[in-house]
Amino acid sequence: MNGKSNRCWLLVNRPISEPSEEDFAINEAPIPDIRENQFLVKIIYLSVDPYMRGRMRDGVSYAPPAVLGEVMVGGAVGQIIKSNNNSYSEGKIVQGNFGWQEYALSDGIGVNIVDPSVAPISTSLGVLGMPGLTAYFGLLEVGCPVLGETIVVSAAAGAVGAVVGQIAKIKGCDVVGIAGGAEKCRYLEEELGFDYTIDYKSQPDISNALNAACPRGIDIYFDNVGGAILDEVLNHINIGARIPICGMISEYNLSQPQLVPRPTRALLVNRAKMQGLLVWDWVERRQEGIEQMAQWIKEGKLYYKEDIIEGIEKVPEAFLKLFKGQNFGKQIIKVGDLQ
Amino acid sequence: MNGKSNRCWLLVNRPISEPSEEDFAINEAPIPDIRENQFLVKIIYLSVDPYMRGRMRDGVSYAPPAVLGEVMVGGAVGQIIKSNNNSYSEGKIVQGNFGWQEYALSDGIGVNIVDPSVAPISTSLGVLGMPGLTAYFGLLEVGCPVLGETIVVSAAAGAVGAVVGQIAKIKGCDVVGIAGGAEKCRYLEEELGFDYTIDYKSQPDISNALNAACPRGIDIYFDNVGGAILDEVLNHINIGARIPICGMISEYNLSQPQLVPRPTRALLVNRAKMQGLLVWDWVERRQEGIEQMAQWIKEGKLYYKEDIIEGIEKVPEAFLKLFKGQNFGKQIIKVGDLQ
Repeated sequence: MNGKSNRCWLLVNRPISEPSEEDFAINEAPIPDIRENQFLVKIIYLSVDPYMRGRMRDGVSYAPPAVLGEVMVGGAVGQIIKSNNNSYSEGKIVQGNFGWQEYALSDGIGVNIVDPSVAPISTSLGVLGMPGLTAYFGLLEVGCPVLGETIVVSAAAGAVGAVVGQIAKIKGCDVVGIAGGAEKCRYLEEELGFDYTIDYKSQPDISNALNAACPRGIDIYFDNVGGAILDEVLNHINIGARIPICGMISEYNLSQPQLVPRPTRALLVNRAKMQGLLVWDWVERRQEGIEQMAQWIKEGKLYYKEDIIEGIEKVPEAFLKLFKGQNFGKQIIKVGDLQ
Repeated sequence: MNGKSNRCWLLVNRPISEPSEEDFAINEAPIPDIRENQFLVKIIYLSVDPYMRGRMRDGVSYAPPAVLGEVMVGGAVGQIIKSNNNSYSEGKIVQGNFGWQEYALSDGIGVNIVDPSVAPISTSLGVLGMPGLTAYFGLLEVGCPVLGETIVVSAAAGAVGAVVGQIAKIKGCDVVGIAGGAEKCRYLEEELGFDYTIDYKSQPDISNALNAACPRGIDIYFDNVGGAILDEVLNHINIGARIPICGMISEYNLSQPQLVPRPTRALLVNRAKMQGLLVWDWVERRQEGIEQMAQWIKEGKLYYKEDIIEGIEKVPEAFLKLFKGQNFGKQIIKVGDLQ
């Protein structure tokens, strides 16, 4: 780390399909001064998440796109090292959308104070942060799990999926995880208590695999990947099934959408629900979610895994791993140390 | 009507695409005798509904298919003329799935007694029957209309759509109806109080039409038709939109499904819900729905239109009109008279 300058990653190109390291450029600038009401955060951990692929695209979505030539957007956690804001005093740990950089100015908007006594502060980017809360509220409020039901979750070893599966176990569901590779599947079954896993990379026939995994059909499909797996799941849902749509990482890099039959017949025949979700919609219940999950962690009911690499120069590389399923656990980049 | 025999329509062929009159054959058989616990119904009105196209298909759906060579399935209302069942006495008016015929035997399962003092008994097949209850529960329980929201309903002059639009008006929504032809659109606006209509037959650009009709976007799309209109509506929905999937008449006669982009991105970005519905799921609240709608009819808040043709020989013809949008109001066939 260089204490005298602020290294950051700029978005310099909007990819049409697969993103690459050339879409980003590293830059070095002076550490900015704080003005009235502002504070300066020294970033400790940066997060990379699949949703950022959407921010690289110009166009209407639920958030404005990242700006070409400016710091790439992203969540991070760090320590306040200078402050003109009474609510955010020096030394505090804070989490916010600070971007891909070593130092960030903030006025506190969208910033949460992190209690480091609850869990390692990196968890504010994972199990106790955006992905964990997405799993918590998405599963409980959209998926509505009921004791004894069968739930399938895709990207099951990912930051959201692993939490979805474990909360579904806590709620008494039969949990089937879809993940890529034997190591991830073994981890889900042996360490997280999933009832069954499907390794989509070695399983050519997802339909057969779903039949074997879900003899009583699928009541909830928590979808993180979209694509052909979603299409096939629709052939296996039960009456009254719920399909929370959380992400579609298999489609994010497509330059043209895939063309498939509409899912509406399966929804109609089964009186099933497909519903998009975004963690922002439960922002007022954030504390409830964090407290409940911290409690489950303490009780040994909820485990988490982080894939932490070091060095701000590795942020694009870490981001690109997500689209190849090469991360194992929540992907985080350590870019600084606590003072 | 021939009092001594029972004329009925048999399903004799399962069409691949468009159904035709040749898929049905008229048959004449003796009027059956009642056995223990049974009663004999003389049918007064038969109903034809789009869902029957699904019953002509062999395969898994929410109900078993009609059987080749047997009486075609369908709802009807009639009068009990002989009874061995104390709960269903002679003279009573009853509605049930009696099939396309003049006389039906029943043991009472799935049969509802109709109170002829509430409204003409034909309404038990329309506004106070399956289509009306579908509209009532589908809109209120899946659509969840809120004062001031914008709702779009397709097949708006149909048996379900016209009720959906009027209940949405009662709930204080801005109501946009999509229907085929100037006469239906005029009826919806001038007689039923719809705020805006789109004549899809004369409107080549549905996207422009939706922009004009829904300047504040679409909060609810009550879908009776599926197809390209559904695809386009997804480009106009608001955050938190609800899309009750009630029917897809534009797709029922396709031998191969159309291939389109998945709707999931629109659902995700807008945290929107798409949910299939079937009136059976509210069977225990049937009386509530009928009483409320009868009350609205009495208060002049809910109008209905019936398209009644006479003669059992015309049932297939009346059924086929539905797929060309040639019916205007609930399509009913009068096949007999009260005793």
